[in-house]
Amino acid sequence: MEFVSKLLNKIKAKKAKVGVLGLGFVGSALAKGVAAADFKTLGFEIDDQKITLINKEKTRNLNATNDFKNIQECDVLCICVPTPINEDKTPKLDYLTRAATDIANNLKGNQLIILESSVGLGTTRNILLPILKTSGKKVGRDFFLGFSPERIDPGNKKFNIKNTPKVVAGIDKSSSELMYEFYKNIVDEVVPVSTLEEAEMTKLLENTFRLVNISLVNELKDYAYSHGIDMWEVVNAASTKPFGFLAHYPGPGVGGYCIPVLPYFLLDDAKEKGIELGVVEAAAKVNEKRPKEIVSKAREVLGKNGSFGNSKILLVGVAYKPGSDDIRESVALKIWQGLCEKGARVSYHDPMVPVVNGSISIPLTGQSIAEHDLVIITTAHQNIDYQVLAKASIPIIDTCNSLP
Amino acid sequence: MEFVSKLLNKIKAKKAKVGVLGLGFVGSALAKGVAAADFKTLGFEIDDQKITLINKEKTRNLNATNDFKNIQECDVLCICVPTPINEDKTPKLDYLTRAATDIANNLKGNQLIILESSVGLGTTRNILLPILKTSGKKVGRDFFLGFSPERIDPGNKKFNIKNTPKVVAGIDKSSSELMYEFYKNIVDEVVPVSTLEEAEMTKLLENTFRLVNISLVNELKDYAYSHGIDMWEVVNAASTKPFGFLAHYPGPGVGGYCIPVLPYFLLDDAKEKGIELGVVEAAAKVNEKRPKEIVSKAREVLGKNGSFGNSKILLVGVAYKPGSDDIRESVALKIWQGLCEKGARVSYHDPMVPVVNGSISIPLTGQSIAEHDLVIITTAHQNIDYQVLAKASIPIIDTCNSLP
Repeated sequence: MEFVSKLLNKIKAKKAKVGVLGLGFVGSALAKGVAAADFKTLGFEIDDQKITLINKEKTRNLNATNDFKNIQECDVLCICVPTPINEDKTPKLDYLTRAATDIANNLKGNQLIILESSVGLGTTRNILLPILKTSGKKVGRDFFLGFSPERIDPGNKKFNIKNTPKVVAGIDKSSSELMYEFYKNIVDEVVPVSTLEEAEMTKLLENTFRLVNISLVNELKDYAYSHGIDMWEVVNAASTKPFGFLAHYPGPGVGGYCIPVLPYFLLDDAKEKGIELGVVEAAAKVNEKRPKEIVSKAREVLGKNGSFGNSKILLVGVAYKPGSDDIRESVALKIWQGLCEKGARVSYHDPMVPVVNGSISIPLTGQSIAEHDLVIITTAHQNIDYQVLAKASIPIIDTCNSLP
Repeated sequence: MEFVSKLLNKIKAKKAKVGVLGLGFVGSALAKGVAAADFKTLGFEIDDQKITLINKEKTRNLNATNDFKNIQECDVLCICVPTPINEDKTPKLDYLTRAATDIANNLKGNQLIILESSVGLGTTRNILLPILKTSGKKVGRDFFLGFSPERIDPGNKKFNIKNTPKVVAGIDKSSSELMYEFYKNIVDEVVPVSTLEEAEMTKLLENTFRLVNISLVNELKDYAYSHGIDMWEVVNAASTKPFGFLAHYPGPGVGGYCIPVLPYFLLDDAKEKGIELGVVEAAAKVNEKRPKEIVSKAREVLGKNGSFGNSKILLVGVAYKPGSDDIRESVALKIWQGLCEKGARVSYHDPMVPVVNGSISIPLTGQSIAEHDLVIITTAHQNIDYQVLAKASIPIIDTCNSLP
């Protein structure tokens, strides 16, 4: 236990050096939080653009590098690499195994390794740990291991890394103790749970909750629409119930790296175990078919049965959520693809995303709008000129209820 | 418009007499709220026991009667009768049509009629209104009509009728105005919505949200269990997320007059319209099969493949929710039935429900427990002696995680 107390004291004295692997928005937010807590922090990244960006900011205590040998210098290592899904909806763990291998190759001993990426149940124990073991080092003696799911919500002005409680679990008592000691410097409230798998399941539950409730309101919206009901007004009315309800609003479906992805980790594993997750499966299905439904709606509006026959369609908003420039798993891009497959000519406007798919965001003016046959509002950024859209004389499909 | 202002002034001056049809927990809570707001209130009920109970309490301004002729005296009439489902999961509207007929037969004119019972979309306009019209009176001239969904949560110590906002919608402007004026005397916040159907949909959304989220956590619990995970600890951990999550805990499935019932009103109507509500349907399915799964679990625990072969099973809690004496759509009773069908001998303990199914609640002692082969905890009342259960040496299936 000598090693534990040595590392523990190093963390307590803020003399521990912290490495963050992956500098996407999760990793960079964490790295900045760690640096702000007075730990020397090193960000590891394979994308040179991201390294330049971080280093340009000259955040105190924070440097970024692509030299993974420097892992040897670090006492605490946080893995924040992306964990997307493959085309066949199985977890794509390439980034994670690469990061794990980089760590295994540079394990000097007496280090705490924490996985923050969202993963399927058992990934920390059954995938990450075996790779770390290839170093010849022993967990609980030479290195410590844990899982702590990220809860970064990009664009959330109220909750940031500091004031969002952080769930942690170590593989053993020492790892748990080290994690608690580490994170309590970074966040206001650390929430220990009993096992790695419970921490993994917590994140899976949080994301699945979101997918299910967004899909629920989307399918109810279609039903309500058939009765001429404004579902946004209904959700607002239900929101006045002070208990037992949480508002989710209809939209084009949910995108991003997390909510539409994680439930498939569950479904993939449950299927293998022969366990039926009917609610999750139905929700995933509703979300998957949403883009197609909006393409159909576009054809309906334009009176096109087969192909769009060169109709010009303007997509407004391509980021996966308002206020973000992230286009990962963006529903707008799926709609874009669906429109193109049916022969439409698509252009787009997004104040947050200057270039995408080799296209450039066009300015939103009366004239530019008038060059199109249809507008589809797909992401309700606040800094879009909805007034100019409202004045347009061409049809608009407003999937987000964002027009005034 | 003369009639409107006459009724409006009567309400403003609290000179309006209010009739509440149906004195179940919704109707009696409303009647007491109305009486407390200084309106003379008359409760109408066909069950003499309930009438006696209300009249015994001698609440100021409140009397109960089974004489529906007295509807003629009332200026405002609130319908709070039950709207359960038939065996085939279609809405059972007998109580509602009976109440509507009673009102139609006693319409004197210049009355406001409000439906509070939970109903499928369009019920106020397409079922209630036609019955009222048989009186020969005209809506918007002789009588006024609206819908305001009840939000009574029995046993909720924080939110009562007064501090729970109330959604209201009238069939026309006059009806809306009258409803607003009426309810603002009873509750702190009145929330007007545009149409009857939006008010109906608000209640359907609130209840469907609950069913879906309870079913989600129940199916995830089974999955988590296969990984040896304590789902209650996971839900508690997820609850520390300060945005985008609302805790629902696993259990034996959800019962009661509302949550497991209302979503079928949606499903029934959506099916007719050819609209798929996959998430709602999956959630309803999860909830329906829950009692069967618990019966299977009981057989597993007792090592019984076919019938229970006279095993003695003790059900703890038969009310549909903790703190309630209501057994409508109670999951415990469904489990009871399932156990009996497989040959088990069932007794029960419930401090809130002295008699059910011709059985009497047995006291919970070491000795009474020991006379059984298995205990199933089905409703987590607070006033149950969990210590004596914890000390028992027979197996316990604790569906609510209520043991210490």
